[in-house]
Amino acid sequence: METTDFFEVAKRYKVLFFDAYGVLKNSRGILEGIDRTFKFLLEADIDFYIVTNDASRSPQRLAAAYIEQGLAVVDANRIISSGMLATEYLRLKVKTGSVAYLGTEASAHYLQEVGLDTLSIADVNLDQCEDINALVFLDDEGFDWNRDINKIVNLLRKRNIPAIVANTDRSYPVSSKEVAVAIGGVADMVEAITGRRFIKFGKPDAQMFIFAYDHSQRAQEVGKEQILMVGDTLTTDILGGNKFGIDTALVLSGNTLRESAAEQIHATGIIPDYICESAVIR
Amino acid sequence: METTDFFEVAKRYKVLFFDAYGVLKNSRGILEGIDRTFKFLLEADIDFYIVTNDASRSPQRLAAAYIEQGLAVVDANRIISSGMLATEYLRLKVKTGSVAYLGTEASAHYLQEVGLDTLSIADVNLDQCEDINALVFLDDEGFDWNRDINKIVNLLRKRNIPAIVANTDRSYPVSSKEVAVAIGGVADMVEAITGRRFIKFGKPDAQMFIFAYDHSQRAQEVGKEQILMVGDTLTTDILGGNKFGIDTALVLSGNTLRESAAEQIHATGIIPDYICESAVIR
Amino acid sequence: METTDFFEVAKRYKVLFFDAYGVLKNSRGILEGIDRTFKFLLEADIDFYIVTNDASRSPQRLAAAYIEQGLAVVDANRIISSGMLATEYLRLKVKTGSVAYLGTEASAHYLQEVGLDTLSIADVNLDQCEDINALVFLDDEGFDWNRDINKIVNLLRKRNIPAIVANTDRSYPVSSKEVAVAIGGVADMVEAITGRRFIKFGKPDAQMFIFAYDHSQRAQEVGKEQILMVGDTLTTDILGGNKFGIDTALVLSGNTLRESAAEQIHATGIIPDYICESAVIR
Amino acid sequence: METTDFFEVAKRYKVLFFDAYGVLKNSRGILEGIDRTFKFLLEADIDFYIVTNDASRSPQRLAAAYIEQGLAVVDANRIISSGMLATEYLRLKVKTGSVAYLGTEASAHYLQEVGLDTLSIADVNLDQCEDINALVFLDDEGFDWNRDINKIVNLLRKRNIPAIVANTDRSYPVSSKEVAVAIGGVADMVEAITGRRFIKFGKPDAQMFIFAYDHSQRAQEVGKEQILMVGDTLTTDILGGNKFGIDTALVLSGNTLRESAAEQIHATGIIPDYICESAVIR
Repeated sequence: METTDFFEVAKRYKVLFFDAYGVLKNSRGILEGIDRTFKFLLEADIDFYIVTNDASRSPQRLAAAYIEQGLAVVDANRIISSGMLATEYLRLKVKTGSVAYLGTEASAHYLQEVGLDTLSIADVNLDQCEDINALVFLDDEGFDWNRDINKIVNLLRKRNIPAIVANTDRSYPVSSKEVAVAIGGVADMVEAITGRRFIKFGKPDAQMFIFAYDHSQRAQEVGKEQILMVGDTLTTDILGGNKFGIDTALVLSGNTLRESAAEQIHATGIIPDYICESAVIR
Repeated sequence: METTDFFEVAKRYKVLFFDAYGVLKNSRGILEGIDRTFKFLLEADIDFYIVTNDASRSPQRLAAAYIEQGLAVVDANRIISSGMLATEYLRLKVKTGSVAYLGTEASAHYLQEVGLDTLSIADVNLDQCEDINALVFLDDEGFDWNRDINKIVNLLRKRNIPAIVANTDRSYPVSSKEVAVAIGGVADMVEAITGRRFIKFGKPDAQMFIFAYDHSQRAQEVGKEQILMVGDTLTTDILGGNKFGIDTALVLSGNTLRESAAEQIHATGIIPDYICESAVIR
Repeated sequence: METTDFFEVAKRYKVLFFDAYGVLKNSRGILEGIDRTFKFLLEADIDFYIVTNDASRSPQRLAAAYIEQGLAVVDANRIISSGMLATEYLRLKVKTGSVAYLGTEASAHYLQEVGLDTLSIADVNLDQCEDINALVFLDDEGFDWNRDINKIVNLLRKRNIPAIVANTDRSYPVSSKEVAVAIGGVADMVEAITGRRFIKFGKPDAQMFIFAYDHSQRAQEVGKEQILMVGDTLTTDILGGNKFGIDTALVLSGNTLRESAAEQIHATGIIPDYICESAVIR
Repeated sequence: METTDFFEVAKRYKVLFFDAYGVLKNSRGILEGIDRTFKFLLEADIDFYIVTNDASRSPQRLAAAYIEQGLAVVDANRIISSGMLATEYLRLKVKTGSVAYLGTEASAHYLQEVGLDTLSIADVNLDQCEDINALVFLDDEGFDWNRDINKIVNLLRKRNIPAIVANTDRSYPVSSKEVAVAIGGVADMVEAITGRRFIKFGKPDAQMFIFAYDHSQRAQEVGKEQILMVGDTLTTDILGGNKFGIDTALVLSGNTLRESAAEQIHATGIIPDYICESAVIR
């Protein structure tokens, strides 16, 4: 597997979209040396955005975590999360009543900020649920899996309301060796059991990229050929970026391992324009 | 929807296979009058078996529940459960080490009876799991969903062992209005997340019907054209019975409602030979 | 099933997106009276676009067909087709070599207009295919199904190139009683056989709606809450419109029949904001 | 990848089940030296059966092809094909009317022999199809793909009849480098388009193994622990054999390549008891 130096790739573009986990950080925190990458981007006047399947917190809180770890350049304006798309959907389409959610209070906080009336699934009473007009899957924590997953199946049987998945990832790494089931995995199970069609937000869906693209256009007008998506996962970052019509760079610092990258690309037919060791510039 | 009298149908066959839930019993217990059906079958010398997707207990304990409710005719010999198939698989294919399970102690009891060394998923230590040679999904109770579903995902990442689903049903009724997620639904989620191919037992799979067929042949030799499958669910009882080459009767006392039966048959192309109100004989 | 008068619905919006087949036309041609609808829209200064899964012809030729049938108001500027998205993808991502296609010459004409070098699958030589850098599914006509579907399976085995589906519909009506397999159905089969992930364009995918939205913004700036999607199919028009965050109206003049609409909405959980007999204004 | 000598494996069993393509033969004909394997089996009094997903011809004609190529030991009695199961289903369940089929005349010949009234899809008249009571997918040749695949979609819309897939394989090799779409791939497409549930025969389904098992019991009574399945494909031969409770040996002479076998076993979790270079005995 031949790789290209990330610096050589990055300097050809005017805007970079980065996936977060496996690209900028991993289970041990911010990638060592990634600050050099951002330093270069600022100096070279290359704009950048974090495009992430995450609905566990608001962009403000996601940004705060980067800043805490010393990457002050990543402010809330530069973060596009699948949770933002779900929130926009709910704001536009749920005009009355309340929104039941699976997740932590922190994950619901962002919904409340845009004026939605929220209710944790733990607090839902199935005998008095006429007022609930949507269900949203935000985070895999903050509820009792056994009791509350059964509750949502029955809620959807009682109320024909839209079910929104704010993060389609099925699992996420919790250490260098272990993963955890993500809320997207839970949502898929409930969708299969109920037979309903859920409304899903997250890469590789084009809506994420368009949201980021529209954001980037406010700073400067750039064509799609001047944007590069940088990600560690073929089926989300690279497939989604390709489909949106922008160039894509696969980095080997996360989900896709050096030893199996070529075979995965061949098996899936998802072909990045570049392959780089990582997004860290030396 | 025209229906045929169950008595008129039943008397044409030498062996009847019955699904349990929705046919012989429902959330309130044994169906009123179903004892008359069994009285008739005994008098007419028509053999019968219960063919059920259930791995929560041994056939002995399943039978005990019928006897307790006054249906003494249903003894353990007449019960064919998907749990029996899973147990047979484990007995044949797991020659050393232990079997980790999701379920109650009662569900594992049956495995222990055939000599398998079992270990509840709650007691599995991921740092010392070299001895675990199979994982089996038995029942949706008896474990902590959040902690233990994550544990099995990581167990399957550490150990490339067969995963067996002893009941493929995705949900089951807990009252006339509410359902619960069944262990088959949980297994589907873990299968999708891990990308592995699980080994699954339960209707509509032919193995259930063959097991019942072989059982029935010990009592008397009958051809497939003399056997009728009676069930309330198109996608398990009727599809499986049809594929096995026996006649099938759909009853409207459970999953399939009178008002939507015709449309469901049309939409799925799963066509019972008869439709009856219920298996109760007047 | 209670319906709302389309006129009462339409007048609340500033922009209308229409599906074509089943909404504006059917197997017998343009819907009788649909010209009154467009007359009203022009008078009321309500903008409108046709958003259609169609890659068989260029927008110019699609528009010509409306004009021929007396609906002169539908010009090429008002047509957003999935074929346009596929063409844009190919223009951006295929920088060298040629594009093999399944479809008629007319369907490939549009690709040629944007400068792509095209090659009908019938003319592909598998022993000299190094120059082919993409494969696109355009139309179900124009090739020999047996010979050429086998050819594309082998082309994808020889060349790891992106495969683009320019219309995701699986079937389309050819008369009031019969349907035909669409190119999206053929593409699904090839995707399953090869195990590759294809790049697919068409409703319910958000990219179609964003393309239409961006178009509409050139004429006037409108918010999403001022746009209505009008369609006859829950799984494409209504699901896609809902997800994009605009209001949706289901019409009963096509795929979704009056007698089964309520059940389909319940079974799928895809909920239109309005249900109307048709888009024809009296 | 360490392999075990096939001779060392085979001699431990009383009955061997062989897959055909990739195990006994390939695109160039019978595997060189495979006659030595059968010579050994006969001498050692080890029984054997060919268990194959094939519905293109009757067991008699399949056997004739082996005999022609010098493997006279493979007679019709030793062949278990998915086509036999489909034929048995049709014989048991289609009591009146005719069976429409996709395939060659040779593939339908076997149905005719058991007394079924058959009709090639090419000869079906959709305006007079009331007498057609089943549809069966036999072979990928013998019909016009474009015209006749569209015809079966419309036949299933007009007639709610069972659709039987007599071979679930999606593709098959036609040379060392090229494959062809198999009738199972065509059937999957029609199933997806019509939304119906088809009745499917072929490995890994247990019914194939039970049919072979019952056959083997006529010659001598053997337990499952004395039977070995030998195959080149994880998802059919090995998964099916494992599930049926017999031991399994993967050979590297066909679908599964030496260089990717370990990774495929890990990715799928389908674990053979043995891995052998081939079934040829030196």
